[in-house]
Amino acid sequence: IKAAHDAWSGWMCLFLVGLAAGTVASIVDIGTTWMTDLKYGICPEAFWLDREQCCWSSNQTAFGYDNCSQWLTWPKLVGLSDESAGGYIIAYISYVLWALSFAGLAAVLVRMFAPYASGGAIPEIKTILSGFIIRGFLGKWTLLIKSIGIMLSVAAGLSVGKEGPMVHITICIGNILSYLFPKYGRNEAKKREILSAAAASGVSVAFGAPIGGVLFSLEEVSYYFPMKTLWRSFFCALIAAFVVRSIDPYGNEHSVLFYVEYSKPWIFFELLPFILLGAIGGLIGTLFIRANIWWSRYRKQSRIGQYPVTEVIVLTLINAVISYPNPYTRMSSTRLIYLLFSQCGVANNDYLCDYNRNYTNVNGAIESAAAGTGVYTALALLFLALVFKIVMTIFTIGIKVPAGLYIPSLCMGAIVGRIVGIAMEQWAYHYPQFWAFRGECSTGDDCITPGLYAMVGAAAVLGGVTRMTVALVVIMFELTGGVRYIVPLMAAAMASKWVGDAFGKDGIYDAHIALNGYPFLDNKEEFDCTTIAADVMQPRGNAPLTILTQDSMTLSEVESILENSKHNAFPVVISRESHFLVGCVLRRDLMLAIGSVRRKQDDISDDSLVIFNGFVQGNPSASSPVKLRRILDLAPITVTDHTPMETVIDMFRKLGLRHVLVTHNGRLLGIITKKDVMLHMSHHQRTIPSVFH
Amino acid sequence: IKAAHDAWSGWMCLFLVGLAAGTVASIVDIGTTWMTDLKYGICPEAFWLDREQCCWSSNQTAFGYDNCSQWLTWPKLVGLSDESAGGYIIAYISYVLWALSFAGLAAVLVRMFAPYASGGAIPEIKTILSGFIIRGFLGKWTLLIKSIGIMLSVAAGLSVGKEGPMVHITICIGNILSYLFPKYGRNEAKKREILSAAAASGVSVAFGAPIGGVLFSLEEVSYYFPMKTLWRSFFCALIAAFVVRSIDPYGNEHSVLFYVEYSKPWIFFELLPFILLGAIGGLIGTLFIRANIWWSRYRKQSRIGQYPVTEVIVLTLINAVISYPNPYTRMSSTRLIYLLFSQCGVANNDYLCDYNRNYTNVNGAIESAAAGTGVYTALALLFLALVFKIVMTIFTIGIKVPAGLYIPSLCMGAIVGRIVGIAMEQWAYHYPQFWAFRGECSTGDDCITPGLYAMVGAAAVLGGVTRMTVALVVIMFELTGGVRYIVPLMAAAMASKWVGDAFGKDGIYDAHIALNGYPFLDNKEEFDCTTIAADVMQPRGNAPLTILTQDSMTLSEVESILENSKHNAFPVVISRESHFLVGCVLRRDLMLAIGSVRRKQDDISDDSLVIFNGFVQGNPSASSPVKLRRILDLAPITVTDHTPMETVIDMFRKLGLRHVLVTHNGRLLGIITKKDVMLHMSHHQRTIPSVFH
Repeated sequence: IKAAHDAWSGWMCLFLVGLAAGTVASIVDIGTTWMTDLKYGICPEAFWLDREQCCWSSNQTAFGYDNCSQWLTWPKLVGLSDESAGGYIIAYISYVLWALSFAGLAAVLVRMFAPYASGGAIPEIKTILSGFIIRGFLGKWTLLIKSIGIMLSVAAGLSVGKEGPMVHITICIGNILSYLFPKYGRNEAKKREILSAAAASGVSVAFGAPIGGVLFSLEEVSYYFPMKTLWRSFFCALIAAFVVRSIDPYGNEHSVLFYVEYSKPWIFFELLPFILLGAIGGLIGTLFIRANIWWSRYRKQSRIGQYPVTEVIVLTLINAVISYPNPYTRMSSTRLIYLLFSQCGVANNDYLCDYNRNYTNVNGAIESAAAGTGVYTALALLFLALVFKIVMTIFTIGIKVPAGLYIPSLCMGAIVGRIVGIAMEQWAYHYPQFWAFRGECSTGDDCITPGLYAMVGAAAVLGGVTRMTVALVVIMFELTGGVRYIVPLMAAAMASKWVGDAFGKDGIYDAHIALNGYPFLDNKEEFDCTTIAADVMQPRGNAPLTILTQDSMTLSEVESILENSKHNAFPVVISRESHFLVGCVLRRDLMLAIGSVRRKQDDISDDSLVIFNGFVQGNPSASSPVKLRRILDLAPITVTDHTPMETVIDMFRKLGLRHVLVTHNGRLLGIITKKDVMLHMSHHQRTIPSVFH
Repeated sequence: IKAAHDAWSGWMCLFLVGLAAGTVASIVDIGTTWMTDLKYGICPEAFWLDREQCCWSSNQTAFGYDNCSQWLTWPKLVGLSDESAGGYIIAYISYVLWALSFAGLAAVLVRMFAPYASGGAIPEIKTILSGFIIRGFLGKWTLLIKSIGIMLSVAAGLSVGKEGPMVHITICIGNILSYLFPKYGRNEAKKREILSAAAASGVSVAFGAPIGGVLFSLEEVSYYFPMKTLWRSFFCALIAAFVVRSIDPYGNEHSVLFYVEYSKPWIFFELLPFILLGAIGGLIGTLFIRANIWWSRYRKQSRIGQYPVTEVIVLTLINAVISYPNPYTRMSSTRLIYLLFSQCGVANNDYLCDYNRNYTNVNGAIESAAAGTGVYTALALLFLALVFKIVMTIFTIGIKVPAGLYIPSLCMGAIVGRIVGIAMEQWAYHYPQFWAFRGECSTGDDCITPGLYAMVGAAAVLGGVTRMTVALVVIMFELTGGVRYIVPLMAAAMASKWVGDAFGKDGIYDAHIALNGYPFLDNKEEFDCTTIAADVMQPRGNAPLTILTQDSMTLSEVESILENSKHNAFPVVISRESHFLVGCVLRRDLMLAIGSVRRKQDDISDDSLVIFNGFVQGNPSASSPVKLRRILDLAPITVTDHTPMETVIDMFRKLGLRHVLVTHNGRLLGIITKKDVMLHMSHHQRTIPSVFH
């Protein structure tokens, strides 16, 4: 029974994590929609309903998005029409005020209750999953404030998404629930398996992309990802996806966030613009990372960092004031992405679809057509929106409210892609006899789908920012349902990653890890260096080695070693004369043990022998010995001095070590810590061009 | 320049692998279609065309699949109508004869030129990727014969698919091309990275599923899969998919093999039958594995194994004679799967779609309807086909022709799924007021799509056979384009894996690995045992340790040790008295070095000292010493005797070791080889129920 309970507890825990993740995500989704709509108006009969539900309850959805008598915009509420100048100003002001109050509230909540709830938190999560511990980072306060804060900051119209925070939220849930199961709660390594799976469910609920979530956890977040975790992540993501699907916050039956359906497949020649889009995406991504890191560093060093709430309010004010006049920045990022991805059809009457074509036959093919003036207006507005989004996102990522960067990245990419797509489309329309278009475009039907370019562009910029590959493509087609477009998406992801890596090796997460100096040992690099363990180990040269002997040191000697050195671990050898390795003892264990011995045993003096192993030989001193055998690690990992550093690095990564002991013919020579390895790697890294990794 | 070439050579190699894989796959696809059609008839004007191209060249595709005057069936060729009794007999006989000649040719080719080209080869590939070497398994003859053989065995109508063989083919390509790049060709570990990526391209071209291929390589085939390999596999799969897409052997623009489009989403209640299907799939999978393993063992032990060609011919004869009368077994497995996955619409006039409904409005929703007699006939035929397929596949997997088991598994699953689906559909039609159907099915529209059940069933059986999870779901939706159906597919995969694991831990590949006794160290299991290295190491008890000393053994002593022991590696210690470890030397290196010394140096006698390290002390014997320092590995991996076996197993898996040396305070105690670890694990494994892993 106990064995069965033990074995099932992991599944049970992940089942609960999935349930909770799905529930929290649904609440966040519904809250976000409601608060976003609150910027525009209210449902007076039932203020807790968002616009869609408000209109739906009165069965007026058939009249379109903007004509619903149940829903009152703020100007209408005070008796002005939406179109009048006064109405516009009222709407503008209420928009800005709501945005300010949402963002301000989010910033205050974060500052007062949970400082760790800010940002996207993926860099910290990566570091935690690599074995570092940040107390309180995954606690219940962080969970609560992050859940509320992300609704507020998205609703405030800031250039943020809820994907990174959602991963943080689900990992908090995983951490909290793991304490219900002692097997996981008490063992950090086991707990990290739960956290990896929880990360998968985070993306699963944020994007409705369970498989993408598993791959995201595998490719981007997790450090160790054994097969068993793959399988459990899958389960957790499934449960979470199912819960979200049941509560159905997206309000569509497809359970695909940006469902697209294009009437035409892509043609071969288009692979060129797709790869070009990939390259542009890589460039934008790199530019974004550099600018964001530069600003984050400046913020840290200057006085701005001391006024986080003020920073958030100023940024929100600028954002709201500038974004309102442009319809493409005023609408929420997700709606904009949906619009840009979609194909122009009969029902779509946005400026973007103002082509000179007649829909005489509803079921007929969409004919190729010249762009109307509306399209050119839309292009100009989109270009402004792009510049604005890039600039705002650079300043936004890093402020002290919950903020993810997936949706902003997708949004920038979709704009770039749509612009390129429209250019291609008009080129094909005006020059149908150009060799590349001759096959598909000479029939008069529309052969280029600008929406597909938007989709590819979105993938490209997201790829440029995060440097994901497989996970990115899977997320994109789970987001859009566009399985037919795997090859374009893959080509763009490829180009984006290559171009990005050529100009700056690190993705945004690794860049932030480096910026914050987290102890993260990258497991993606490869080192073909010729150094051996003896070159890297401490102590160098003739400096003395800090060691303990197994049965010949007095308590005062051990204590002075503890005082005079800062090492976290001390090797224990047979005697000062013969450095044959016996084991290893951790500073923390040693301090605790000596402390407790000093308190509890009265017959201990400074001259007492400290015995780690072996037996007391005679009785050289008056006081009884301090027996510390139980804290001695008899199985330290060792390497010989001739071991290539490549192998040593491999062992650090794969076995999750903090230090190895270096021996020669069984004699201890020195120690290599994780820090030594990282220094060695960063030193070595500068000598080879990064693109070739 | 050299560094750049070095760094790019991996990408270049994979680019070539992708190109070659795509080309070979396209040729195999085209050849298979042509030969399959040859069983039915010929294109007299251009015998090298298959039916579709033959009809297409005469612009008669509009008249349907069976009415094309350019294409002559064998009865027509001799002047009989297809419908007459004589025509039927002629068609039957020619079908059987062609099948026999294809299968016979395949078996003879395999037997004469490339015995390794038989079967699906995934178990062997897994073993090779875990570090074992099978000479000739990935050679050019295997590549050639396997490519030809797979066309022949699929065309013969045997219950085989071309997916496993395609992976073998692409890995052969990877192996051959890696020799063009010395960095990869000369280093087994590096070469395995290329092979892992090539495996991804194999599934990519077989199914048109690049992402599924990468995940298949990650989850099922590869042993070490660092992030870098993920990224390169992705590239290789992309190139291969692109080449196949360019040559377009599937003849459809979607580049999705079994593209499905259902008009209705699934309803919640359906999750129950989906999970049930998953459980059935797991059962069928386990049953299949057990029966197949039983038969494979019987074949090995009995005289059947000595007549592989006869076995193939007898099996083909039985298969062809029984399969012809039933239309569902006569058609190729891929066509059957496509038919079973599809939704009944206006155009589909198979028996399966014989419902009592009128299509008055072509664009209207498909109404719910009672099944006609055709459906019941189809159900009976499908049930016979299912039994037949299961039995034939059990006997087929393991015969000496190239044979994969994905398509047969999908086929069995699709049949089961369709049967369950039709049952559900009729239930919903006859009892629309049953609580589960009340929401969606009471409108009169069709609410249950039997095709979706076929898809889920196919995933379930494939999951039961292979025990894949994430890769399975991704392959399924790349095969079908059904991103909306991720949750049903995941639920079925989950149920299938759980049920399968409960009745038998191993998937078909692991079962075959165990059957053949390949040295494969499973990296999916977890061991919570309390044994330590000292309990497992050789020698046990007081048996003497086989060692070499660094500078005090004579050549004859070393040679007698080599003769009297079978170890593959010998530890080298300082002296017989003090067993402090110096290094380790491989048997092969030692034999080669001694052989060359004996041949080349004249002043060597049996009394010559063998010097591994250190200096010659004086000159105790007349002859000059044998210096073997260069073959001594100075960086052997060591553990202490107190290291828990869990850690030792972890090191074996993650660092890909073949042996570790066990020390105590620097003194050598013993050695643990991979074989010792595997024995220990299999011993330990029997004591805990397998489902809990």
